[in-house]
Amino acid sequence: MATNPLPTWNDGPARAAILDFVTQVTQEGGRDYVPPAGRIATFDNDGTLWCEQPLQVQVIFTQDRLKALAAKDPTLKDRQPYKAFLELDLKTLFELGKKALFEIAFATHAGVTEEEFAAVAQTWLATAGHPTLGRLFTQCVYQPQLELLDYLRANGFKTFIVSGGGIDLMRAFAEEIYGIPPEQVIGSSVKTRFEVRGDRGVLVKLAELGTFDDREVKPQNIQLHIGRRPILAFGNSDGDLAMLRYVKSGEGPRLALLLHHDDAEREFAYDREFTLSPLAEALDRAAEYGITVVGMKRDWKAVFDSGQGTKA
Amino acid sequence: MATNPLPTWNDGPARAAILDFVTQVTQEGGRDYVPPAGRIATFDNDGTLWCEQPLQVQVIFTQDRLKALAAKDPTLKDRQPYKAFLELDLKTLFELGKKALFEIAFATHAGVTEEEFAAVAQTWLATAGHPTLGRLFTQCVYQPQLELLDYLRANGFKTFIVSGGGIDLMRAFAEEIYGIPPEQVIGSSVKTRFEVRGDRGVLVKLAELGTFDDREVKPQNIQLHIGRRPILAFGNSDGDLAMLRYVKSGEGPRLALLLHHDDAEREFAYDREFTLSPLAEALDRAAEYGITVVGMKRDWKAVFDSGQGTKA
Repeated sequence: MATNPLPTWNDGPARAAILDFVTQVTQEGGRDYVPPAGRIATFDNDGTLWCEQPLQVQVIFTQDRLKALAAKDPTLKDRQPYKAFLELDLKTLFELGKKALFEIAFATHAGVTEEEFAAVAQTWLATAGHPTLGRLFTQCVYQPQLELLDYLRANGFKTFIVSGGGIDLMRAFAEEIYGIPPEQVIGSSVKTRFEVRGDRGVLVKLAELGTFDDREVKPQNIQLHIGRRPILAFGNSDGDLAMLRYVKSGEGPRLALLLHHDDAEREFAYDREFTLSPLAEALDRAAEYGITVVGMKRDWKAVFDSGQGTKA
Repeated sequence: MATNPLPTWNDGPARAAILDFVTQVTQEGGRDYVPPAGRIATFDNDGTLWCEQPLQVQVIFTQDRLKALAAKDPTLKDRQPYKAFLELDLKTLFELGKKALFEIAFATHAGVTEEEFAAVAQTWLATAGHPTLGRLFTQCVYQPQLELLDYLRANGFKTFIVSGGGIDLMRAFAEEIYGIPPEQVIGSSVKTRFEVRGDRGVLVKLAELGTFDDREVKPQNIQLHIGRRPILAFGNSDGDLAMLRYVKSGEGPRLALLLHHDDAEREFAYDREFTLSPLAEALDRAAEYGITVVGMKRDWKAVFDSGQGTKA
């Protein structure tokens, strides 16, 4: 066990709540002891583990995909909704809403096999940079959260992502960056079709949405993929509220955490006015629901690792 | 590492194929080395890890559920398809086909919460016995397969179930009996609805099928739940063939195994004539597809552990 866990977290109620909770559930013989098998922790990704401003990475990834498609079919540049993606026309994109927007994004990969997609995503992530933060997207992960994931795993927790982002885009970097293997990533997905091509069995992505992993679908997918109620969950928007309440209302000790982006200087400050993933009810009713609010400004010594970039 | 792995497997080509494969993928620096993260093994359940004769356990579980429902609504006893379940009228049940039959079985739990279902399933499994084998169903698991699961895990594999059986019925015993945690169980499932009852968030089972995890749906669900191609798969029917071919046709070393029930004396002998889960194409084309056939009679020293029961 690290002698100083969570070094980038400031002393305060959020850090204390995490340390107390972990001590409580790992103390053998204690009243609130949870055997390792039950130590399941679920994290939202966009806005919880990495940046989601000005737009979720999924949308910017789609922009690059559409640029490639538009090179072959220039009419896409003049046709909505593709035009809005290509121009990053935020007004039009926000009007579509998160689900429709992601659904269009996912559909741009129809016909691509599982392996082809993984290669495209990994190539893109290796060089794609945030528009204002001066870092690669894979460097826009929050240092305090990397420490928290490590700390939980060192205490016998199994860590999962439960996010509205595309399941396969997240799987292309989650193992390397977060230490979370593909089988512990839950997200939005399209349906696939099994085909035998020559001698090879392959899975081909379809344009049809399988699941949009947001709001009440998060606990539903946790049941489907994990099959037991997690004891810790971390989110940052109203899209995570059902998951936080599901986790918090299980028997025994539970910890539900909510990240509030209130740090315009080091990252971004937003909540209810962000139209894609607003934070309103979860913030207003956190005390009532027993949710611990983490303030980025107050609770984190640093947001990103010190190795690369600064906010432009 | 055990000095004598797989003690209940006879020396022969099947045992040798398994031992060779595991040696190959675990030999650091070897040409076919696979890092632990990639050592994913998937097993069918009914007929591969435990008995599926004369009927899948799912159907017998449903019979007991319907008895309880019929106590409240006696008209069920005269209404098909419930009558066929209550009387275990195999002819009518087989005519329904596996998918329809399982779908009806799953629907009998509509309105039940995740936790209520787990309690019902665990109570039932604690005492439910096989009709002819003189054992509890949970003792109808194959001893050689328990050894294989242990052997794979001792060699850094992560073991998964990928079965047509109901995901939550399997989760009620898989951790205790197979050492496979709920999050590594993939199966057929119904949709659920997230509800807040009083202060508690609960998941309620609906009558609507989510996925019927058979044939080409197995690789599709492996992609959804696991997100990478396993390197070993084990099945026993044509319902597993898509999974076996998917696994076998990946890059690098792969092992696909098919259990042939040819042991009427110790268990059951059946293949193409079993109407619910026939084995025909997978057996006929095993050599062509590179699938290793395991003969229960030839390859296993014993079928069940010696502690309980004998075949009636």
